[in-house]
Amino acid sequence: MNLAQDSRRARQERLVDILGREPFLTDEQLAAKFSVSVQTIRLDRMALGIPELRERIKDLAVSRYHEVRSLAPDEVFGDIVELELGVQGLSIWRADREHAFSRSSIVRGHYLFAQANSLAVAIVDADQALTARATVKFMRSVNAGSYMIAHARVKGERHGYVRVGVQTKVHHESVFEADFLIMRKGIEITGGSAGEGCD
Amino acid sequence: MNLAQDSRRARQERLVDILGREPFLTDEQLAAKFSVSVQTIRLDRMALGIPELRERIKDLAVSRYHEVRSLAPDEVFGDIVELELGVQGLSIWRADREHAFSRSSIVRGHYLFAQANSLAVAIVDADQALTARATVKFMRSVNAGSYMIAHARVKGERHGYVRVGVQTKVHHESVFEADFLIMRKGIEITGGSAGEGCD
Repeated sequence: MNLAQDSRRARQERLVDILGREPFLTDEQLAAKFSVSVQTIRLDRMALGIPELRERIKDLAVSRYHEVRSLAPDEVFGDIVELELGVQGLSIWRADREHAFSRSSIVRGHYLFAQANSLAVAIVDADQALTARATVKFMRSVNAGSYMIAHARVKGERHGYVRVGVQTKVHHESVFEADFLIMRKGIEITGGSAGEGCD
Repeated sequence: MNLAQDSRRARQERLVDILGREPFLTDEQLAAKFSVSVQTIRLDRMALGIPELRERIKDLAVSRYHEVRSLAPDEVFGDIVELELGVQGLSIWRADREHAFSRSSIVRGHYLFAQANSLAVAIVDADQALTARATVKFMRSVNAGSYMIAHARVKGERHGYVRVGVQTKVHHESVFEADFLIMRKGIEITGGSAGEGCD
């Protein structure tokens, strides 16, 4: 066994370790971490039988969809990869060029809103849930090609309205934050209150 | 001239008058107003040379697009039919089945957000404008097939941030309200302030 094989084996062991802790790193991010080429990471993944990121996300997402109550699987904007109904969830969505402004390549805000809103509705433990209010902050502009990782958490519930906080990150950096007030279906609406809701 | 012709002429005169004041009424709404069939309204429109609502909207929208500075024409979600840069604007968007939940036919909230956000950005008098914050209320659920009429108004400007209020109505009833804080491009960002923005 030569030095090259040694370093490859060490790198592959670290790769398995890192992807165990951060499963949503792209090949580009892994290449930067190991100071090797993207092609090297791809060969390592193949040798280890680890599918590419898109496939890893789809595999995780498919296993979660049957747990969502409030939305049909094809109605979730983004891939839900973690879900504890009534508690929290995680979704991943890759923004492509079609989601960005042509002049600037900046991803359009309503897609970040859509991902966060879908996830917030999905983690509500009810057969139908409608958004009544939302407060959102766009912290940083996001370029097409980025993977958006949204994390939603139920913050409380009162009179049938569930408050859900969502934080969306790209490369560990917060790009979007939202606070949703979501109504479980079947709650009587009183005039002038949080409203009937939508989505 | 007989009575039938008399009433038709009177109705057609009122039709022109009503559409002058409320140009975005559908044939169904006009039929209900006149207590006649939708077919009768269509024949009246044809006799008067008034195109159908979709055409009326497109005609108005095309004439407005060159005035928008901050977005390319195909980037506006909805049709902008009125625009006073830096002051106010009106956009119309018809929600189809593809924009609604399959189970309930309720239009998804992020489309109402997209229409309002597009319009809010479009009325800003700048070459590029990014949304920093938004507060939105969903007042009533909207069914697929509805025409959403959004009206945006600039409420103030401070340190390069423009505040825009948007109200969206269906059949004169408020279904959605939003308050956007939009950053003109080129404004220096100070850490922890309203952020870099998106859209």
